[in-house]
Amino acid sequence: MVSTGGFVLNIGYNVAILAVLIVLFIILVRRPGNLQVYFPAKLQAGKGPPSGVVYRTPFEWLRELFNASEDDLLDSAGLDAVVYIRFFQTGLWILLGSLVYGVLLIPVNYTDSNYEDAKPVGNKTVEYNNLDKLTMGNIKNGGTRLWAHVIGVYWVSFVVYYVLAKTYREVVNLRARSQSRAGDNVNQFAIVVTDIPGNAQGSKRAQQIDEFLLKTHGSSYASAFHVVHMGRASQLFQELETAKSKLARAEAILSKAPGEPRPKHRTGPLGLIGPQVDSIQYWTKEIKDIGSKLRAEQQLAAVEKGRPAAIAFFNSRTAAVAASQTVHAKAAETWQTFPAPEPRAIIWENLGFRYYERTVRRAVVHFATFLIIVFYMIPIAFVSGLSTLDNLKRTLTFLKPVFEIGAVKAILDAFLPQLALIVFLALLPGLLMKLSKSEGILSLGHATRAAAGKYFYFMVFNVFIGFSIGGSLWSQLDIIQKEPAKIISILGKSLPMNSMFFITFIVTKSFTGYGLELSRVVPLIIFHIKKKYVCKTEKEVLLAWKPGPFSYATAVPNDLLIMTLSLCYSIIAPLILPFGIVYFAFGLLVNRRRALNVCVPEFESNGAMWPHISCRILAALLTMQITMVGYMGIKQAPGSGLLIVPLVCTAIFFLYARVKFYPSFRVSSLEVAAEGEEHHIPISVVKDAYTPDCMKSEHVGKVADPEADPRKPSLEIPSDTDV
Amino acid sequence: MVSTGGFVLNIGYNVAILAVLIVLFIILVRRPGNLQVYFPAKLQAGKGPPSGVVYRTPFEWLRELFNASEDDLLDSAGLDAVVYIRFFQTGLWILLGSLVYGVLLIPVNYTDSNYEDAKPVGNKTVEYNNLDKLTMGNIKNGGTRLWAHVIGVYWVSFVVYYVLAKTYREVVNLRARSQSRAGDNVNQFAIVVTDIPGNAQGSKRAQQIDEFLLKTHGSSYASAFHVVHMGRASQLFQELETAKSKLARAEAILSKAPGEPRPKHRTGPLGLIGPQVDSIQYWTKEIKDIGSKLRAEQQLAAVEKGRPAAIAFFNSRTAAVAASQTVHAKAAETWQTFPAPEPRAIIWENLGFRYYERTVRRAVVHFATFLIIVFYMIPIAFVSGLSTLDNLKRTLTFLKPVFEIGAVKAILDAFLPQLALIVFLALLPGLLMKLSKSEGILSLGHATRAAAGKYFYFMVFNVFIGFSIGGSLWSQLDIIQKEPAKIISILGKSLPMNSMFFITFIVTKSFTGYGLELSRVVPLIIFHIKKKYVCKTEKEVLLAWKPGPFSYATAVPNDLLIMTLSLCYSIIAPLILPFGIVYFAFGLLVNRRRALNVCVPEFESNGAMWPHISCRILAALLTMQITMVGYMGIKQAPGSGLLIVPLVCTAIFFLYARVKFYPSFRVSSLEVAAEGEEHHIPISVVKDAYTPDCMKSEHVGKVADPEADPRKPSLEIPSDTDV
Repeated sequence: MVSTGGFVLNIGYNVAILAVLIVLFIILVRRPGNLQVYFPAKLQAGKGPPSGVVYRTPFEWLRELFNASEDDLLDSAGLDAVVYIRFFQTGLWILLGSLVYGVLLIPVNYTDSNYEDAKPVGNKTVEYNNLDKLTMGNIKNGGTRLWAHVIGVYWVSFVVYYVLAKTYREVVNLRARSQSRAGDNVNQFAIVVTDIPGNAQGSKRAQQIDEFLLKTHGSSYASAFHVVHMGRASQLFQELETAKSKLARAEAILSKAPGEPRPKHRTGPLGLIGPQVDSIQYWTKEIKDIGSKLRAEQQLAAVEKGRPAAIAFFNSRTAAVAASQTVHAKAAETWQTFPAPEPRAIIWENLGFRYYERTVRRAVVHFATFLIIVFYMIPIAFVSGLSTLDNLKRTLTFLKPVFEIGAVKAILDAFLPQLALIVFLALLPGLLMKLSKSEGILSLGHATRAAAGKYFYFMVFNVFIGFSIGGSLWSQLDIIQKEPAKIISILGKSLPMNSMFFITFIVTKSFTGYGLELSRVVPLIIFHIKKKYVCKTEKEVLLAWKPGPFSYATAVPNDLLIMTLSLCYSIIAPLILPFGIVYFAFGLLVNRRRALNVCVPEFESNGAMWPHISCRILAALLTMQITMVGYMGIKQAPGSGLLIVPLVCTAIFFLYARVKFYPSFRVSSLEVAAEGEEHHIPISVVKDAYTPDCMKSEHVGKVADPEADPRKPSLEIPSDTDV
Repeated sequence: MVSTGGFVLNIGYNVAILAVLIVLFIILVRRPGNLQVYFPAKLQAGKGPPSGVVYRTPFEWLRELFNASEDDLLDSAGLDAVVYIRFFQTGLWILLGSLVYGVLLIPVNYTDSNYEDAKPVGNKTVEYNNLDKLTMGNIKNGGTRLWAHVIGVYWVSFVVYYVLAKTYREVVNLRARSQSRAGDNVNQFAIVVTDIPGNAQGSKRAQQIDEFLLKTHGSSYASAFHVVHMGRASQLFQELETAKSKLARAEAILSKAPGEPRPKHRTGPLGLIGPQVDSIQYWTKEIKDIGSKLRAEQQLAAVEKGRPAAIAFFNSRTAAVAASQTVHAKAAETWQTFPAPEPRAIIWENLGFRYYERTVRRAVVHFATFLIIVFYMIPIAFVSGLSTLDNLKRTLTFLKPVFEIGAVKAILDAFLPQLALIVFLALLPGLLMKLSKSEGILSLGHATRAAAGKYFYFMVFNVFIGFSIGGSLWSQLDIIQKEPAKIISILGKSLPMNSMFFITFIVTKSFTGYGLELSRVVPLIIFHIKKKYVCKTEKEVLLAWKPGPFSYATAVPNDLLIMTLSLCYSIIAPLILPFGIVYFAFGLLVNRRRALNVCVPEFESNGAMWPHISCRILAALLTMQITMVGYMGIKQAPGSGLLIVPLVCTAIFFLYARVKFYPSFRVSSLEVAAEGEEHHIPISVVKDAYTPDCMKSEHVGKVADPEADPRKPSLEIPSDTDV
């Protein structure tokens, strides 16, 4: 139970942190030496802050965010980022729309007297405070006032339908515009072909692919890239790149201090043991050796390591679009086709699994995910239990004197049990992404969505359901054991009271979370340390401030959880709505800044994340509606039967969106492809884009471009002396 | 409870009927005057019996059936009929395969002693006879012998998987061969386009269609037929055809008896009242009048009655196949495309419903079907109750003297309550077909499958579940009311005993049913009456023996019900298997004869019925597996937990078939289309085939061909004098 004072204190504490972080940001962002921390995306794109001056006034960064148009965002961060920002707008509109009615509900709740009149349950009296009186818990069971909440469910539902339908339509248009525009979307001319039958290799396989696609597509088929096992080639290519940067580093050290002895290193693990060699000579020889190995591996792979998959290229967008959607072979599980992802988004290892293998992998991964979601908390609890100070003393006896020191003891006592939770939860997103990739998914975009979905279910189960229902039941376990029938009334009593916990959760995420994100204090410190003590070459400095991607796989589920919490409590405890609004408003600002100045996407899925997001917002609404059906039942509301209607409407809306909008995200339509037909891209360019670096002959033997990304970074960065 | 004697008597009675009918057939089929009854399809195709002699020996008809190859069947009745016959082969193999194990189970059952040792349930002793001892009911609860039955479930399951997979593969190949062959399959060049946006009419709409399809398909698009409301035109066309045949009839009467006065008739209803007119003059004028009305209506419809749908024609098979599977428009619910059905299979009224309308219609129809399946028996019982003799006497008092006659009274008493059942059940298939068509389905083939599916569920619910479970519970209602816990033991006891009822059911269907079908006694009598007393013109005689279609909508569900019964009781009472085998063997023979000589299909769906049949055989297997899980539980079988494995295997097989085979039935593959590309059909032929008769200008004004079917009948039918 959160007291009113504690609640207000917590908010104050979070506001204070936010204020400090914003002040820090305003000071730090205007120092030219921090440009690489606050504007890495702009710098990489070759667009430094205008006229070299960073923000003339302390709040110019805000004006910059408000002035940026959607096209600016599209240019700087791509459609995926724009869709992600749209998500915050959508959330904002949904919660603002809900608040319009929520404001009316608060006095309705406050002026009733359920808590004052309540009789004790078992041997416990009902504890409540003034904040609890703002919730639906203060409405008397079976009272006519509950009609206001029934209407509220309708209101919130229709706000969600309206906002989602509107945004869906806009995103479909954005996607169509982006797909038919000129530029580098080579994927519009390519399809992925998997499950090629037979076991032919080398030129026989290439001939088989050509023959089949020529027969089925005639002259619109151009050529194909036959996928091979590239593990060894890719590894050699990595080694080659490493060797090249080591050579560059050694040369930089030598040129900075020409008088010193030539740089040397040991060849053993970590450079600690083994014979000492001259670095420049060593790496020059290595580059030559690895290069010839790579050439041999490329030839070997082409002849012997073929996989039953290919990327096929077409002469027109419409031909590729039609080919990606059509059943090709009589045996429908062979020659399966898919729209090609962007070259950089392809997961090459997964091209070449056959249909049955993919199906089994998917089934296994889904089962494993289910186990993780339901049982992840158990090992955490177990490890937390093991890693108490007393246990440590017993196992690490030689450290016992250290543990006896008062300060160490106090810190470890407080920190150790949390450590397991923090470590395990931090490992989770990576684990889920690994699992998603091993489903056999073709593109990084799809894998990201799959991982995001898994993480979302994890959080809904462990945070939302765990705390709201599980928490309530757990805390009153003694009463339930005595009188199991009380379970419903306990749930009914505690559901509104849990809202305070979730509001606190949202506050922390909004104020401290987004404050840290905006101020970028952590990347700032890391960058300056790296620059001062680690980096020797220009390339290493570039890598130190290289703009990071949007981490959709963890960000989207977190945002969706806040949406779920806000929607679910929107009627029970409307006080949650303003905090949800603050979250989405801060998110909108911070992510606009990230899209404009900070982040560069790893890949572009052309907004394919939207159906994922939209579907889960709808699921959040459904959860709210089901919760309300249950809670209204507990409250013996007069109109609770009417709550079936919104449930049916949600199902209909889901089907509507599925038919009307979903196909546009799964595949391209011929109409959109035809509209882009005028912007032709030569097939040689397309083909080159889809040949992985490690399979290209020109990369071998010459020193690679320091920056793999096609967007050349601006090298005119103010030097340290300007700071 | 069926006694052993009664059971044997019933079989004997059915065998006797069959013998009589076969003898009748052998005698009647060889009389040349009955040629039109026994060989209508052959005659219509212009292929009379070879050298004019019908069957030299009494059993030559059997040799004809055995000698006919699948290609013969394909030529005479098309792929749908071949697939239907394949169904009987499949059923035969499945049941024969099951019988191999069933033969082992019978002694296992017979030599146990559950019935002999049984204690009375309530105040009733368990009645049983020697036939019941052949069932699993005679195995003692918890006995080790039950292992044999657990293994039996595995055996039957794998027989079904094997036979289904094999047949599926063969049918896919047959379908591919039929789709890529030369000939009249104009539908390979056409697609159906629905949900065309906007409300344009006339030439504007035609232009919109052309523009969109040219933009998305370029030169592979040829042209389109814009669908209009054709209700009025179709009605006028029917009137025109009627007028033409009336004129021909009047002219025939006149020419046969030139001396008699010219034929006259009255113009009022049924020709009973109204002014008398000269028939030849009247119909000649009518033909002219209706013809000009039809011309006017055709023009009006083209300009004003457009619907948002079209049939689009393509210059190549591959282009049409790709177009039928591709999302066309950004708003995916518009410009939806489907593979075109054959021209004669299109349900024109349903072209033009929009997506949402179709969805709502489907939902409403499915709900109505659910109500019909569950509650159809209630009005029947009600009407049966009302239509007793006593009730009739009360309502139809003026007929009371008639009812008092002894013989009339006896007949009515026995017959009246059955009448309602017979009438209502006879109305059902028509009702279900009407319902299926009103779903908005595009083709007759699809509507037939939809109606067959509904009828199958009806029979499984009302016959199988109704009699096996419902019947058992109903008969021992008094015990259940006293001790509700007995419900499981009663079900367990009576389930095997019900097998006798179902065997009798199968016997009647096989022997009497197929005997009647083979002998064609009813069509024979009707034809001779019509020929003698009704027909005046050559065309009317042709119509009197016109070959009928296969009635898949009622036949398939009936056959599937037998399959379900046979599979479900295959382990509990293996005695059902030989009778199921007899049913499928007779069905195979009779339907081969029908395909060769008797029936001419209404339409050709290229074997699209197969996934429907296969899926329901699998559902029958699933029902068996679930029944066995339940029954083994009642029997406390030691290995009943192992029965989960076949359940999972069935689910996996279902998904396997769905991925591997189902797409080949839903759409054509590019590979198959490309193989047929050499057999080109000129677009003008395709377009003409897809223009409905009532919208063609050439039909209006001239006298129509006496036979609408393109296959010209052989007119060299031996005259009556030869008989």
